[in-house]
Amino acid sequence: MGDRVCGPEIERLIQLLARLPGLGPRSARRAALHLIRKREELFGPLAEAMRVARDTIVSCSICGNVDSCDPCTICRDERRDPSTLIVVETVGDLWALERSGAVKARYHVLGGVLSPLDGVGPKDLNISSLIERVAAGGISEVILAVNATVDGQTTAHYVTDLISHLGVRTTRLAHGVPVGGELDYLDEGTLAAALRARTDF
Amino acid sequence: MGDRVCGPEIERLIQLLARLPGLGPRSARRAALHLIRKREELFGPLAEAMRVARDTIVSCSICGNVDSCDPCTICRDERRDPSTLIVVETVGDLWALERSGAVKARYHVLGGVLSPLDGVGPKDLNISSLIERVAAGGISEVILAVNATVDGQTTAHYVTDLISHLGVRTTRLAHGVPVGGELDYLDEGTLAAALRARTDF
Repeated sequence: MGDRVCGPEIERLIQLLARLPGLGPRSARRAALHLIRKREELFGPLAEAMRVARDTIVSCSICGNVDSCDPCTICRDERRDPSTLIVVETVGDLWALERSGAVKARYHVLGGVLSPLDGVGPKDLNISSLIERVAAGGISEVILAVNATVDGQTTAHYVTDLISHLGVRTTRLAHGVPVGGELDYLDEGTLAAALRARTDF
Repeated sequence: MGDRVCGPEIERLIQLLARLPGLGPRSARRAALHLIRKREELFGPLAEAMRVARDTIVSCSICGNVDSCDPCTICRDERRDPSTLIVVETVGDLWALERSGAVKARYHVLGGVLSPLDGVGPKDLNISSLIERVAAGGISEVILAVNATVDGQTTAHYVTDLISHLGVRTTRLAHGVPVGGELDYLDEGTLAAALRARTDF
């Protein structure tokens, strides 16, 4: 579609929308048309929200979360248990844990996982700042809430090695059957782990 | 996810992104995180493109297309055949026809189809302006490029009735086998239409 069709402004909007995850060229066109049709209710507010978010959102210098203040709202929250630290790969994982409502502690966002194939080494992750936080004292448990992937587990082992001499307990999330999950659809590794970690009924 | 997690600015961005077609709450969160991660390459340019598009894009007062100028680029294009008018339902359909590269004429965007069940009547569509354009003279053929749906065909019949006395030829798109399509997957109506409209090999 050349700019003779719809003007360079719409063309550019579509090109940039198409770079969002979950949107391709076709859905980006649909999204752009939807925006133009809902100019007052959606286009204006979204354009303004993007400008505000782009100008205000920063990475938390303590934990790596994103927020409009630094330190972030979670690091500032006095009601959270300061003795426990939950290590996650990404801010998305942090949000997922927060949605669970089960967390009363603070976080440390690694910003990814060790992945030699992708050229991601320890220096590319927020690992040294994690060691500093733990070494500074006051933390008794580090929960490694990384993904149950090979890279995630490798990263967990690497981090554990680095903080093992600091006298801090390191734990990881339990493996098992997802709530609502059906055994028939689960892989053998998960079933074996769930059997090993069985609890009294 | 309360605003205690990620600040009201991100929360609002996610809520508005989730209202785009093709994005739900989960993919809106992923999109927001992607934007924050790609602040320089994507977030800034997209926020700016949205502001520019929101401020410049208008509906063409002649044909109903959207563009940053009025009349739109297509209506201004002197190389297009002024004697043929292609009637489409939406701007998305106009873009689709333009991508085909087969159009050398100008358009008229109805802005939808007649749909009594949804409360869409003739006054809700750009039908009177179509009649005016045709009645003004200089147009010898109106191609009704509406969707091959019940509502689309109803609208085509309605429009044809209104312009039949103006001495203009009205045509519609051919039914048939899509290029690259397999007969086994086509519905009977399409196959019957393709047979009826068969051409010499």
